[in-house]
Amino acid sequence: MATKLPPRDAKTTQRLTELADTVVELAGRRRDPYVDVPTRSLSNVKYNKSRRFIEMGRATNRRHLFNLSQAKSYMQTMLVASGVTQLVEQGKTTSIRGLYYLLKHTIEGTKEETFSDQSECDPVIEDCEVLLNSLREELHLYAQKRGEMVGDLVLTDTGDDIDCSRMGSGGYGIPSIVEPEVIQFKRCDAKFILHVEKDTVWQRFNEDKFWRKHKCLLTHGSGQPPRGVRRLLHRMHNELKLPIYCLLDNDPWGYYIYSVIKQGSINLAYESQRMAIPDAKFIGLRSKDFRECQLSDSVKIALNDTDRKRAKQIAGYPWFAPKKEWQKEIKQLLDNGFKLEVEALISKDISYVTEHYTPARLKAKDWLD
Amino acid sequence: MATKLPPRDAKTTQRLTELADTVVELAGRRRDPYVDVPTRSLSNVKYNKSRRFIEMGRATNRRHLFNLSQAKSYMQTMLVASGVTQLVEQGKTTSIRGLYYLLKHTIEGTKEETFSDQSECDPVIEDCEVLLNSLREELHLYAQKRGEMVGDLVLTDTGDDIDCSRMGSGGYGIPSIVEPEVIQFKRCDAKFILHVEKDTVWQRFNEDKFWRKHKCLLTHGSGQPPRGVRRLLHRMHNELKLPIYCLLDNDPWGYYIYSVIKQGSINLAYESQRMAIPDAKFIGLRSKDFRECQLSDSVKIALNDTDRKRAKQIAGYPWFAPKKEWQKEIKQLLDNGFKLEVEALISKDISYVTEHYTPARLKAKDWLD
Repeated sequence: MATKLPPRDAKTTQRLTELADTVVELAGRRRDPYVDVPTRSLSNVKYNKSRRFIEMGRATNRRHLFNLSQAKSYMQTMLVASGVTQLVEQGKTTSIRGLYYLLKHTIEGTKEETFSDQSECDPVIEDCEVLLNSLREELHLYAQKRGEMVGDLVLTDTGDDIDCSRMGSGGYGIPSIVEPEVIQFKRCDAKFILHVEKDTVWQRFNEDKFWRKHKCLLTHGSGQPPRGVRRLLHRMHNELKLPIYCLLDNDPWGYYIYSVIKQGSINLAYESQRMAIPDAKFIGLRSKDFRECQLSDSVKIALNDTDRKRAKQIAGYPWFAPKKEWQKEIKQLLDNGFKLEVEALISKDISYVTEHYTPARLKAKDWLD
Repeated sequence: MATKLPPRDAKTTQRLTELADTVVELAGRRRDPYVDVPTRSLSNVKYNKSRRFIEMGRATNRRHLFNLSQAKSYMQTMLVASGVTQLVEQGKTTSIRGLYYLLKHTIEGTKEETFSDQSECDPVIEDCEVLLNSLREELHLYAQKRGEMVGDLVLTDTGDDIDCSRMGSGGYGIPSIVEPEVIQFKRCDAKFILHVEKDTVWQRFNEDKFWRKHKCLLTHGSGQPPRGVRRLLHRMHNELKLPIYCLLDNDPWGYYIYSVIKQGSINLAYESQRMAIPDAKFIGLRSKDFRECQLSDSVKIALNDTDRKRAKQIAGYPWFAPKKEWQKEIKQLLDNGFKLEVEALISKDISYVTEHYTPARLKAKDWLD
């Protein structure tokens, strides 16, 4: 490559080159080439109490070229590494589906395919992320785009100034790749971030211009927020020093979304340090809200067996287990025997959630940590 | 209501008032109140050859208050009408989930709920749309938001000017409600619209700045486009006089997405006149592309039984049946025995689709109608 790479890409390229060098070096010494891939299984994941997020342990699996059962996955690892090298050098990005098509071919002189389907390629991509200590986004791979933002923030996205306070009813679609090379923050007059679970709730807050009145950024992630949204929240929290409050459903799924935003996910523990936000707060809905907000029986949704099982699992997570307030919250959910969606507050008034519930909770600092 | 309503809302309110008046009038004459709801079933849907879209027939079902089997649905119809009246008067919008919560309650003096669950409310909302001859959006109800746009268009969204050519990598999130009260077009330098199926493909086109080079608007709808995207495409096609080209997968699902954009959907036939775009073109992928683009066997995905069945059904649609080119296209898909995703073109080159495939098809006017 004659053109100079951006600093982040230069770092990624250096790691890719180092990986390639070890292969060449071992081959030159007529040794069996191998790679040590950090183990991505539950056994190698732990909660780091002082950093307050889930992280990977130090266990690795060695993957040899000259081993019949490992040769194919060794080849696939190198193939993915060479594919992302191509992306980085060309300055292009693609989806994991795109990378799969880029790399899929019949190996010359055989009837063997490099990958039989996408599900064979995805874990190798994750292997490469941990192997190269690079986020997927740094490997120029993007995920599906979901989630929007509005509020008093001006940012630059690939050279375009975006004023998130002038986005009408549509909002700014949060991209999948939000690394500093793509997005820079220019000016922020917001004091905090309100992250809501669903776009329909987000629309209520946007229509009522909650973010203008309360000087906040308003985001949603269409359920479990995708990587781009989590990474952007992480950057805004750390770089713009904005506290984050999460408004999610009162059910195990809402608790779990909060858990992932706050402590990281078990599956993708290696991303935690660049995604997890240990200081995020949970402002609701809470199990006490049915009584406190004087809701009617009509809005109750009965817990099913899966809900009860998941609630107990979540109560046992090492980051929730020592917290009395969380134990009380989850116990009350189970005692209630029903769950509540944020939309249930509409039964009080269409704008109850924006005009009463959320302002009152913020004012009273009434949230779970 | 003291404040003056916007013209569209005034029209909706007038229809709601007329509905209420018939009830009052019948009750005053001591007659059994009823409503005639246009029939929303396959039997009452037909393809209008001259208008070239699917539309509803004139059949209606009478719904009486004083009929044990109809009283509940009569009550629900009135309840939904009163709920949307409240929304229109307050100048607020909500999701169908929100309306459900707004209307759900235990009927006084009984243990009967107005709606037992969402699935009981949704068809009544659709009834009210046809009954009032109003789009859901005119009833102040929004659907899930999906889909983005970028290109040389400046629009005004609830008072904010949005320059769709300055949206970075994120794009403008197309709102669910895009009626003229919400969105006005200010300036358009684009010559056509390229609508792609998936956001991942959209990102490739956006990254390669295809829309700048070819002076087009670039949209996607995350699969089957939601109502907001269809309605915006319809408005841009008719008001800005922009031709629309669809780039979809070479499979029955891709054909079906095209069919809905072009002719309307069977389920929601009453929306066709404000959503269908009979002049939309299908530029690919085509069944001939495997050979024409010299793709490798690796990218083939075998058709399954459902695919074959769906393909035959679609070939029999009255708007595809008389078209030789479409019959040939679908026959070749079945003869091929495999389908192709747009991403399969990545196997040629990451930017093959933006630099070769699409420009060549547009230049040669090589599309299906």
